[in-house]
Amino acid sequence: MSHNSYGNLLKFTTWGESHGEAIGCVVDGYPANIPIDIKFIQSKLNLRRPGQSKFTTQRNEKDEIKILSGLFNGKSTGSPISFIIFNKDQRSKDYSNIQNKYRPGHADFTYHMKYKNFDYRGGGRSSARETAMRVAAGALSEILISKITKPKMKITSGVIQIGNEKIINEKWNENFINKNPFFSPDKNVIKKWENLILTHRKNGSSLGAIIEVRVKNCPVGIGEPIYQKLDSELSKAIMSINAVKGIEFGTGFKLVELDGTNSSDQMSMNKNKLKFHSNHSGGILGGISSGQDIIFRYIVKPTSSVLSEKKTVTKKMKNSVIKTKGRHDPCVGIRAVPVGIAMTNFVIADLLLISKSKLI
Amino acid sequence: MSHNSYGNLLKFTTWGESHGEAIGCVVDGYPANIPIDIKFIQSKLNLRRPGQSKFTTQRNEKDEIKILSGLFNGKSTGSPISFIIFNKDQRSKDYSNIQNKYRPGHADFTYHMKYKNFDYRGGGRSSARETAMRVAAGALSEILISKITKPKMKITSGVIQIGNEKIINEKWNENFINKNPFFSPDKNVIKKWENLILTHRKNGSSLGAIIEVRVKNCPVGIGEPIYQKLDSELSKAIMSINAVKGIEFGTGFKLVELDGTNSSDQMSMNKNKLKFHSNHSGGILGGISSGQDIIFRYIVKPTSSVLSEKKTVTKKMKNSVIKTKGRHDPCVGIRAVPVGIAMTNFVIADLLLISKSKLI
Amino acid sequence: MSHNSYGNLLKFTTWGESHGEAIGCVVDGYPANIPIDIKFIQSKLNLRRPGQSKFTTQRNEKDEIKILSGLFNGKSTGSPISFIIFNKDQRSKDYSNIQNKYRPGHADFTYHMKYKNFDYRGGGRSSARETAMRVAAGALSEILISKITKPKMKITSGVIQIGNEKIINEKWNENFINKNPFFSPDKNVIKKWENLILTHRKNGSSLGAIIEVRVKNCPVGIGEPIYQKLDSELSKAIMSINAVKGIEFGTGFKLVELDGTNSSDQMSMNKNKLKFHSNHSGGILGGISSGQDIIFRYIVKPTSSVLSEKKTVTKKMKNSVIKTKGRHDPCVGIRAVPVGIAMTNFVIADLLLISKSKLI
Amino acid sequence: MSHNSYGNLLKFTTWGESHGEAIGCVVDGYPANIPIDIKFIQSKLNLRRPGQSKFTTQRNEKDEIKILSGLFNGKSTGSPISFIIFNKDQRSKDYSNIQNKYRPGHADFTYHMKYKNFDYRGGGRSSARETAMRVAAGALSEILISKITKPKMKITSGVIQIGNEKIINEKWNENFINKNPFFSPDKNVIKKWENLILTHRKNGSSLGAIIEVRVKNCPVGIGEPIYQKLDSELSKAIMSINAVKGIEFGTGFKLVELDGTNSSDQMSMNKNKLKFHSNHSGGILGGISSGQDIIFRYIVKPTSSVLSEKKTVTKKMKNSVIKTKGRHDPCVGIRAVPVGIAMTNFVIADLLLISKSKLI
Repeated sequence: MSHNSYGNLLKFTTWGESHGEAIGCVVDGYPANIPIDIKFIQSKLNLRRPGQSKFTTQRNEKDEIKILSGLFNGKSTGSPISFIIFNKDQRSKDYSNIQNKYRPGHADFTYHMKYKNFDYRGGGRSSARETAMRVAAGALSEILISKITKPKMKITSGVIQIGNEKIINEKWNENFINKNPFFSPDKNVIKKWENLILTHRKNGSSLGAIIEVRVKNCPVGIGEPIYQKLDSELSKAIMSINAVKGIEFGTGFKLVELDGTNSSDQMSMNKNKLKFHSNHSGGILGGISSGQDIIFRYIVKPTSSVLSEKKTVTKKMKNSVIKTKGRHDPCVGIRAVPVGIAMTNFVIADLLLISKSKLI
Repeated sequence: MSHNSYGNLLKFTTWGESHGEAIGCVVDGYPANIPIDIKFIQSKLNLRRPGQSKFTTQRNEKDEIKILSGLFNGKSTGSPISFIIFNKDQRSKDYSNIQNKYRPGHADFTYHMKYKNFDYRGGGRSSARETAMRVAAGALSEILISKITKPKMKITSGVIQIGNEKIINEKWNENFINKNPFFSPDKNVIKKWENLILTHRKNGSSLGAIIEVRVKNCPVGIGEPIYQKLDSELSKAIMSINAVKGIEFGTGFKLVELDGTNSSDQMSMNKNKLKFHSNHSGGILGGISSGQDIIFRYIVKPTSSVLSEKKTVTKKMKNSVIKTKGRHDPCVGIRAVPVGIAMTNFVIADLLLISKSKLI
Repeated sequence: MSHNSYGNLLKFTTWGESHGEAIGCVVDGYPANIPIDIKFIQSKLNLRRPGQSKFTTQRNEKDEIKILSGLFNGKSTGSPISFIIFNKDQRSKDYSNIQNKYRPGHADFTYHMKYKNFDYRGGGRSSARETAMRVAAGALSEILISKITKPKMKITSGVIQIGNEKIINEKWNENFINKNPFFSPDKNVIKKWENLILTHRKNGSSLGAIIEVRVKNCPVGIGEPIYQKLDSELSKAIMSINAVKGIEFGTGFKLVELDGTNSSDQMSMNKNKLKFHSNHSGGILGGISSGQDIIFRYIVKPTSSVLSEKKTVTKKMKNSVIKTKGRHDPCVGIRAVPVGIAMTNFVIADLLLISKSKLI
Repeated sequence: MSHNSYGNLLKFTTWGESHGEAIGCVVDGYPANIPIDIKFIQSKLNLRRPGQSKFTTQRNEKDEIKILSGLFNGKSTGSPISFIIFNKDQRSKDYSNIQNKYRPGHADFTYHMKYKNFDYRGGGRSSARETAMRVAAGALSEILISKITKPKMKITSGVIQIGNEKIINEKWNENFINKNPFFSPDKNVIKKWENLILTHRKNGSSLGAIIEVRVKNCPVGIGEPIYQKLDSELSKAIMSINAVKGIEFGTGFKLVELDGTNSSDQMSMNKNKLKFHSNHSGGILGGISSGQDIIFRYIVKPTSSVLSEKKTVTKKMKNSVIKTKGRHDPCVGIRAVPVGIAMTNFVIADLLLISKSKLI
């Protein structure tokens, strides 16, 4: 059972609503004696937090995170680590005019049907605000993974497509990713994306995005078949992020266009090191990491909150129309990047601990 | 923890290797007093079992399933239901010539690295043979769902693309699906697929496939946010099937080409019934079923076992080449169809029980 | 995995140390639309909180509880409910003189060995202060159970023995239990216990206690064999409370003195109602509630923190002696009573939800 | 969720009814490359199996166990290990005369109420026959623990009281335990127990027993506070065994008669080794093993199946009487001894793996 928890040996539980007093997270199962630098965690949150550029929502949350338990003298103790962020810039009145209508494309309707209630203020629990806490848990996982892996495992992730504009795939420049407001690995696309987003922002519309994740130096042997396969777990994790509608590994859906003679990754020894000749598998075979880079992509749909009028129904099931005027992201996919990294770090950290436990 | 188990309130655990004495499955948490027709379960297995047409592997397993516990007078008792299938047509010697080499694209290398051993006979535990047991567990779930849902929930699934040949999407003919050896919903594609597969079979090569799943009448409100979302759980389930490399819901990856004004599903009342104007979301909003058809697609890669020679390394890490001569599927995606249905039934049955428990 | 979580469909996770900034708890899986009265929860906490009479520790914590999420307009929403209590009256300096020594009978030594660190301030995470959060989670469960059961299930619990002084078992007066500082169901023992405790307090010593729990109107059929039996789950829950060293159901250990002819509870119909002639089983048969009162007892050992000098070793493994001068309970068993009730409520609420889910 | 499963990283799932075709068990999460000797496992089963002396039931099951998966070349592969025992000596007709009546003290009534069905043949799923599979899983755990612990951990367990006859506690002779049909550690009590049991057998009655378990060389640091404490987990495990009604650790219920000055175990260094001066705690402090012997006791009630007539009701809720004539144990506690050892081995093996995973 894991309604609001994620993980196994390492587990986090998030709580809190978009416009509640605070949001938080409890990380359990974290090994003891790991030095925890709260500034490192805050730096990860800063990558996700809103209000930072004209390309994201104008809701301005400082997202100052605080640790309430589980540390002693700057190190983890093995006890649960409790994070809290107090909400500051909730403007719930922004939502008062839509409180009786279901916003199309949002979870309003299904939450109301399921729970027979709905906290309409900013989407309540269904808001992407919850993902701030995943970033905190992911940052903790990253610290842990750094301690365990040699050479150090490293995750990079960037946006590779916004609307119809793709990056040129050969131009994956890791260092550039954190130097532009889109997490783009390719300089050449920046101008196009700026125009695209500003146009959509002006029109009150929004854009989808495709994000790629690359994991270097993931240890070989991570993932527990049959039902804790690494790709299966990553899919669950990534698909749980708001607005994500698909995921693929390695060559992904394009594999249908290849055949058995050119779609598997041949191997040979190269100066005493194993070399794969290609990476169609995305670094995972039979659900277990092979030592190749783990590569996957996911799609984040365009935000459904737009200014143009849409047909919808009220809570009393009467026809109506709606325009959503709250502060929203013109391309919410951008802010999904640090969340996807966090979830990937978390899934691998958990499976790493499981893997360690089985080495007799 | 769920290495070889799946589910929560309803749970199944599979065991057994491709060339072992038997394979089996224990289903736990199944409600009592449900009449169980073993013939129904066998009929589902027959859809998956090999050796049935020239389009699938020639390994000929009757896959006769037997129930060893959990029934009394033809009904479930609430105790665990144990399934067993004895393996018949293992020809392990087919594998003796490749026992010291890693087959590219297969799990041989990663299993060996992870477990420091490898049952090379037919892939051992990593073989798709394990999926027979998922079909049994899925059939049980289907029986349960039929008892609970009104109108009855129904899953159909078909192959929509093999190699470069797609069906015409408007031609989704449910009744035709079980009347052709490809689970195609479209008559017009049959001839093309026959040629494609027979050509690849002759060349000793193989093909990938894309499969679509459609769930009608899934009750509204299924799925537990944030970390047991319906789409997240289905992704985990489907991605755990051998050779699956991607999944997408509703409009999926194509959503990147839409914008916020045309990508959310507007709603209105039509003769006192709620109507969605489109189904970009694939029937799931915020991780919860909306009552629309649940629609998703997944890619099954071409079988990596092909006759042409490939570069690989031996268990002693020496360069070598390999041809795999065992009996294999020219398009393993076809036989994945009943497995995908089974996993979908299972995931929904489990979440249905959870949902029921929360109705106060 | 449940290091700091408890439960299945209903689950709580506690966090926080005795002398940290705050302690808290997240309750997940709680059904929606249940009116939650924070005053009711506070009233339960007040029964457990210290500093209330001369028979308990003088640490004075108001234990004001606050809810940070999961409520909307006074009702549960189905989202996680987050509780927090800020610590007020920590006097960590009380512990400075013992920070390098292991207190005998406490968890200092084992925590240090396990985690290679130890938060010596008040026992850190191992402190009974954590149980405040169990009481909050238990109160929520009680509210839920009241909504579901008809006639209403009711738990009462009292101390039945302190030191060598037992109550007279026939004198179980439910109404008296909350009218005396010992949770005694028997008036006659009060004077004896007062003397006993005041004497031990003066001598700087402490006393053990045996507590009995009685559950009336637990619905028939609660408990999931084989490994979620009601008595098995209650044992796990009660044994997880600090200082508890044993538990027994019904006639318990005394059953060894009976034989098969007089130890099973005969049944007969009495005015169309089933009647058991005795209750040796404690209301549980085969791990499932029978409808009889559920009855069990547990032993809480004397607090190990006493004024007299004891032999111990230092963290550097040198011989030493120790006297613990912090503020402690002369009979910590008294304050365990509301904790035991809370855990019982929680276990039954969780199993009730599971039970509901299986009714087809 | 764990209706019929037990454990976390290491997990077993049992299935099967007393009078079904077979019983079985799947052990998941077992590390790879451990040599498994089926004869060792069979030898453990032989200690539990019925029909071996006049002091146990005359049902004669060979209990020949078979492994169907998870081994390759005599070693574990990391995949699930599936055990099966085919039932041989079921005489279901023994039960035909009682099929419409609830046997007092048995689970007939509660199973029927819960599941609305009841497999009356030998108690169906509620039969102690299920415990054979725990012994198999426990034997696997023992093999694993032997590989991990240094010095080797060792569990011994014996009956210390039958009816009113206790052993003399000082006479705990480990070597004698497996040399008498009662698992008694004390020679002097044998004659008394023989008489007691034969008398009760003749009278068609039965006896209860108290069993003690002692674990030597359990590594320090096993157990995960707060909700996977070692004593809490052992209590759950032992209390799940049929007919067990209570458990206590160390000095247990007798601690109520001690006070804080004499009930905690003082420590000192003795030739560079830590020495505890007593073992009131039973080797567990704060839920974590201290390195002392782990000691606990549990009560197994007298079998409720006796020849004398008892009042009961029929399935139609009419008054009736019953005598149970099946083949039963005069003191079922004797055969619980290997089951208790198995569960103890299993719990510790699982927690050991968890513990290993957290060592960074």
